[in-house]
Amino acid sequence: MIFTKPTMLLSPETAKKNLQNMCQKVKKHNLLFRPHFKTHQSGMIGAWYSELGIDKITVSSVDMAEYFMRFGWEDILIAFPVNINEIAVINKLAQHIKLSLTVLNIESVDYLAKHLNYEVDVYIKIDAGYKRTGVVWDNQMELQSIAHAVKGKKKLNLIGILCHSGQTYKANSVSEIIDIHLESKYRMKNVQKTLRSVKKDLLISIGDTPSCSLADDFEGIDEIRPGNFIFYDLQQYRLGACKLSDIAISVACPIVSMHRDRNEVVIYGGAVHFSKDTIFEGGRNLYGYAVNLSDKGWIFPDNKMLLTKVSQEHGILSVNPEAFLEYKTGDFIGILPAHSCLTANLMKGYVDLNGVKYDHLAGK
Amino acid sequence: MIFTKPTMLLSPETAKKNLQNMCQKVKKHNLLFRPHFKTHQSGMIGAWYSELGIDKITVSSVDMAEYFMRFGWEDILIAFPVNINEIAVINKLAQHIKLSLTVLNIESVDYLAKHLNYEVDVYIKIDAGYKRTGVVWDNQMELQSIAHAVKGKKKLNLIGILCHSGQTYKANSVSEIIDIHLESKYRMKNVQKTLRSVKKDLLISIGDTPSCSLADDFEGIDEIRPGNFIFYDLQQYRLGACKLSDIAISVACPIVSMHRDRNEVVIYGGAVHFSKDTIFEGGRNLYGYAVNLSDKGWIFPDNKMLLTKVSQEHGILSVNPEAFLEYKTGDFIGILPAHSCLTANLMKGYVDLNGVKYDHLAGK
Repeated sequence: MIFTKPTMLLSPETAKKNLQNMCQKVKKHNLLFRPHFKTHQSGMIGAWYSELGIDKITVSSVDMAEYFMRFGWEDILIAFPVNINEIAVINKLAQHIKLSLTVLNIESVDYLAKHLNYEVDVYIKIDAGYKRTGVVWDNQMELQSIAHAVKGKKKLNLIGILCHSGQTYKANSVSEIIDIHLESKYRMKNVQKTLRSVKKDLLISIGDTPSCSLADDFEGIDEIRPGNFIFYDLQQYRLGACKLSDIAISVACPIVSMHRDRNEVVIYGGAVHFSKDTIFEGGRNLYGYAVNLSDKGWIFPDNKMLLTKVSQEHGILSVNPEAFLEYKTGDFIGILPAHSCLTANLMKGYVDLNGVKYDHLAGK
Repeated sequence: MIFTKPTMLLSPETAKKNLQNMCQKVKKHNLLFRPHFKTHQSGMIGAWYSELGIDKITVSSVDMAEYFMRFGWEDILIAFPVNINEIAVINKLAQHIKLSLTVLNIESVDYLAKHLNYEVDVYIKIDAGYKRTGVVWDNQMELQSIAHAVKGKKKLNLIGILCHSGQTYKANSVSEIIDIHLESKYRMKNVQKTLRSVKKDLLISIGDTPSCSLADDFEGIDEIRPGNFIFYDLQQYRLGACKLSDIAISVACPIVSMHRDRNEVVIYGGAVHFSKDTIFEGGRNLYGYAVNLSDKGWIFPDNKMLLTKVSQEHGILSVNPEAFLEYKTGDFIGILPAHSCLTANLMKGYVDLNGVKYDHLAGK
């Protein structure tokens, strides 16, 4: 394959295998599967999910919901606290598809009740320990109050409670992730109990990729919404949620400068390609690992090459002296990014190993 | 003004004042001015520069050069090590405009000599201490060797040496920035001397906004290429390179959740809006300061509100209890970003206070 500038490579084989693995888990545990599409943000990649019979999805913005509605998705949850300023588009969505919204305060519930023209399903966002947002899991008064508020509204159909236990991303071991998962599960079941008097059998929906990849106890959970698992990345690898060979994307970047005196190689590939998200490894922040590119994808080099610095367009790879024998200015090298969601958002599209181009919302 | 979702606000008044200040400095020191357009990446904002008689610009990618050529710019320097894989577009540019390229190794020089169809001007990239890329300023042999290589090529017109002293971004005081500036200046003049035998009077071109904003000694320097100064941001403010009131952009973000129990407010505004660039203040990383929005722009609140965490779409503001009296869910709040270049790249466009929309390359 011939590239001229930084290009996001996609391995459909790896991504489809990741998807099949998650589908098997869903089946094994008899779960509802509502995968998050904020990672790939691609209509064409979304089609792989519908081919497997998946008919419900999660997105993180109203824009994303609109985008996927255009690709034929008819059951979409916006798993982000409702932004009442977007009511016009929300109404447009609710007119055409089965729309689910996320609420966490009475003000938004009242606003929706007053301004919605069509019925929507509603999840209450629960803070099960991440402390980002949501009603805190053991605040029984607030839980009851918001559930009652939703239940009393004609256009709002209370169906579930959802959480995102993003604290798993800070975990230092697989067992810590499992502990967080089990704690969240316990807390969500408690919320379900607390709200039983308002509505029976509220769906329990959980989200994060580390838990969904690693846990094997989903007792009491009804629905999972992982997103990142389709591509994985170095953050997931560091957490033990995937193997390096499960990572389904890499960014092909041209080498523009070789600095043998300090064992560094400069690539055209920086913060506008990878974002500034990092993993912490060996006492420093890393933006990616470099891999050798081949016609069949990418191969891990014998010696690690690490993306240690990025500025707007520059990336600095720390390499071993052998790299100066293997590479020269103008060659392309692949980068496995620290965070695939943000990298995909910046790269705005994918090319697979056969040269097929895939869309991305940001590149529309 | 009415917004529905995160929106990049621009104050043309502030940006034009920043531009005029830099123009005055250029005039005072009798410099060539080749402003960097990678910060705003906007054809419409670029027009403000040409109105002031500026006719030379700097960009950081071939794509950006193409973009600004379409807006009528005829003298463009790509201040990024030449990516030989983009030779086809480079030739297209060189056919139509006065194009300047940046080289730092013999391989690229040889490649250009062989594949260029039109003449280009050439700057040699010098590493004057930043250690990102470029020929190291005191490596006389390498400097001579590359200068000779360029000089011997028919299509390559050696005109200058350029550096970007990005180490100023790591400085802890204004005097440290001035010291770096003077050191770079000394080193660039040395390079000029070293190369005098190859070519007399090579232009000395320097770039970084902190030096260009703060220094007042440009003796021996011929050209400056700052970019960020048009908007400035919190990184520049922290360095002492601007006042808070010089910052010309903010991102209007809707509040989606208020957490009085922990003095936090959640906004729709995250890593896909601000990037993950930070400033370090008070022992922690910050992604932005919040400001109150008004019809006249933005006003600094009595009590600081700090953007302390971001995930893909969520931003967490740390606030004082008073904020819960002033704000409610659905209200918009402004965010001054840590790094305006990356924020503008993600937001893909601007709206000024009169509702006029401005283009951005990423949103084309």
